[in-house]
Amino acid sequence: MLAEGAIGAGQIAEAYKAYLTCLNLRRWNDLGHFVAEDVKHNGQAFGLAGYRRMLEEDVRAIPDLRFRADLVAVTSPILACRLAFDCTPAGALFGLPVNGRRIRFGEHAFYRFEGLRIVEVWSIIDRASVARQVVSEGSD
Amino acid sequence: MLAEGAIGAGQIAEAYKAYLTCLNLRRWNDLGHFVAEDVKHNGQAFGLAGYRRMLEEDVRAIPDLRFRADLVAVTSPILACRLAFDCTPAGALFGLPVNGRRIRFGEHAFYRFEGLRIVEVWSIIDRASVARQVVSEGSD
Repeated sequence: MLAEGAIGAGQIAEAYKAYLTCLNLRRWNDLGHFVAEDVKHNGQAFGLAGYRRMLEEDVRAIPDLRFRADLVAVTSPILACRLAFDCTPAGALFGLPVNGRRIRFGEHAFYRFEGLRIVEVWSIIDRASVARQVVSEGSD
Repeated sequence: MLAEGAIGAGQIAEAYKAYLTCLNLRRWNDLGHFVAEDVKHNGQAFGLAGYRRMLEEDVRAIPDLRFRADLVAVTSPILACRLAFDCTPAGALFGLPVNGRRIRFGEHAFYRFEGLRIVEVWSIIDRASVARQVVSEGSD
C-alpha cells in the first residue's frame, strides 16, 4: 500500500525510461522534467545546471554514448539501474587512453525520486573493467 | 500481478535480509539456503563453493566486515542493494595498502533470484573511493 502522495513503482519506472530517452536524444533543455533543481550526485550538491554539465561532458568525451537499461528494480521512491555501455570514447576515459577503441562497461546507479523527478543519485562505474580492456587491447 | 510460481518483492526482500544476516554471522554452512548451487558472479560460473570461498577470503582480508544494506529496490526477480561498508582491512585491499586504517566504501549489487535463492550477481565496488581515502590519509 502506498502512503498518501507517494508515487507507484510503475510510474517511477516509466519516468526513468523517459529520462533515458531524453539523454539519448541529447534533449538537454528537457532535463528539468526528470531531474530536480536541487539534485545531488554521489553526495555533491550538483543542482540541475551542474548535472546537465556533467552529462554534456560525458557526451563530449563519448560522442556515441547510449544509455541502455540492462536491469531495473524499483521500490518507491528508489529506482536502481544497471546501465550497459558499448561505445567508442574519442580520447581518454577515466584517465585511460581509450583513443577510439570500442569498450563495454557497466554503471550501477541508484536514484531517489521525489514525485517523478530524480533528487539524488548514487553511482558506481566499473572503471576496472575499462582498464582491463585498454590493457588487453593494447597488448595485442 | 505475479506470474504463476513467481515470488513477490516482499518475499525476496526478506530472503535478502536473512542472507545478509547469514554473512554477518559467518554461517557459511547455511549459505546454500540463500545461494543456488550454480550461482554466477559477474559473468563467472562460481558455483556455491566458489561463492563461499570468495566470501571467506573477503572476511579474512577484512575481519570486521559487516554487510549493511543502505538502499534496496526490488522488482521480482531482481533485487538491487547499495551496500555501505565501514571497516578496517588488515593489510592490502584491491592492491591498496590500507593496513588497518578505517575506510568506508560502497558496493552496488544486483541479484537475480530463482525462488528465494540468488542465482546471479552483478557487482561493482567503489575502488576509486578506497584509493582516495588511502592517498589522503597517507598524506596527513
